Amino acid sequence: MSRFILALDRAIDSDTLKELSRHLHGVKIGIPLILDIGVDGVEDLLSCCRWGEVIFDLKLADVSSTMVATVSRIRDMADSVIAHAFIGVAGALDGLKLYLDDHGINLYLVAAMSNPGWNADLYYGLLREIISHIDPYGLVVGATYPRYIGLARRDFPDKVIISPGIGVQGANPGDAVCSGATYEIVGRSIYQSRDPVESLKSMIDQQNRKIRNCSSGVSDLS
Amino acid sequence: MSRFILALDRAIDSDTLKELSRHLHGVKIGIPLILDIGVDGVEDLLSCCRWGEVIFDLKLADVSSTMVATVSRIRDMADSVIAHAFIGVAGALDGLKLYLDDHGINLYLVAAMSNPGWNADLYYGLLREIISHIDPYGLVVGATYPRYIGLARRDFPDKVIISPGIGVQGANPGDAVCSGATYEIVGRSIYQSRDPVESLKSMIDQQNRKIRNCSSGVSDLS
Repeated sequence: MSRFILALDRAIDSDTLKELSRHLHGVKIGIPLILDIGVDGVEDLLSCCRWGEVIFDLKLADVSSTMVATVSRIRDMADSVIAHAFIGVAGALDGLKLYLDDHGINLYLVAAMSNPGWNADLYYGLLREIISHIDPYGLVVGATYPRYIGLARRDFPDKVIISPGIGVQGANPGDAVCSGATYEIVGRSIYQSRDPVESLKSMIDQQNRKIRNCSSGVSDLS
Repeated sequence: MSRFILALDRAIDSDTLKELSRHLHGVKIGIPLILDIGVDGVEDLLSCCRWGEVIFDLKLADVSSTMVATVSRIRDMADSVIAHAFIGVAGALDGLKLYLDDHGINLYLVAAMSNPGWNADLYYGLLREIISHIDPYGLVVGATYPRYIGLARRDFPDKVIISPGIGVQGANPGDAVCSGATYEIVGRSIYQSRDPVESLKSMIDQQNRKIRNCSSGVSDLS
């Protein structure tokens, strides 16, 4: 086990996935993988392993009816789904949250993406209000914006914070956890590696070293 | 022909779709339909008919690499795709736009959603700058925000503007075109109707009546 979630945007062989799963908290399923192998293919792929958490990352950002129609197609597989906070409450996140609560699925809201063009300084205050209103299970905050991981941890002390942007996108293993994230999301560094299992183990070592050395503020595991 | 685009979030029989297509500018494919019948199923469904425009509405809102990986799976079918402007330029829309330009696919950016919780007053100025920078083919502006259709038409006189929110969401046929939209998007009012073809014809009549009576500002068809 580690504080890593694997972002899976393409299929990998089930033996490798099984070995990886032993060292992961969970798996995050992206749209490209669903387009490749379909909903049934994803179900087959996931059945290889025991997962602490299966997150469907469709980056939901639409009106309620469309988001509910989307989630209804994958609800039996999903522990959690990710939606954007910026779409607002009425006619969007309100209906989605009701549906997810009814079906026992956790909602993560994106508080900050990981790309450099994300206007974190401008957006954070706006999105914080929407997040407070919806009261999701967790937040997504890019590892490339450590300051906002810290702010999100301060503003939402009880939320699970997951953080993409480790590896190819520039942040190092452990950086986000030391800033206040609960889990770090890693994708291409693993599934594009020649030896995914070794790459993951090496990243876990780095993550553990970093966490041991960060002064404080490491959040408890949920 | 009309100024309608059909939003298809679930499959309908191909005879009905063929009859509808004769009265439509184009079709917009949503995520729920793709999850239902897969990418190949969507290709089969679309092959029934000749379309002025096939728009894939995945509401893309992710980092460049994920959006490009997503679009690469449907690029042979898509004339156009829709992405959110909110995500910003660097590491998101920049990479997507390059890829789409390389493959001759049009990009629409969401300037305003149609749900009541969308903070149009706050967002429009922010998104206008991102839209100007990316210079997309077109914009999406909710029919429920006619003021912002007008502003978008004024600020981006040469862009195709498509407008969801007609029918179930509250706007009437022709309202958005009279405010400056090029096409109106209709979904549930048609595909949930007992007689989709009759419902569409009735909406086209309403749209035409409204357009004849609106004083000016009706945009040319592209």
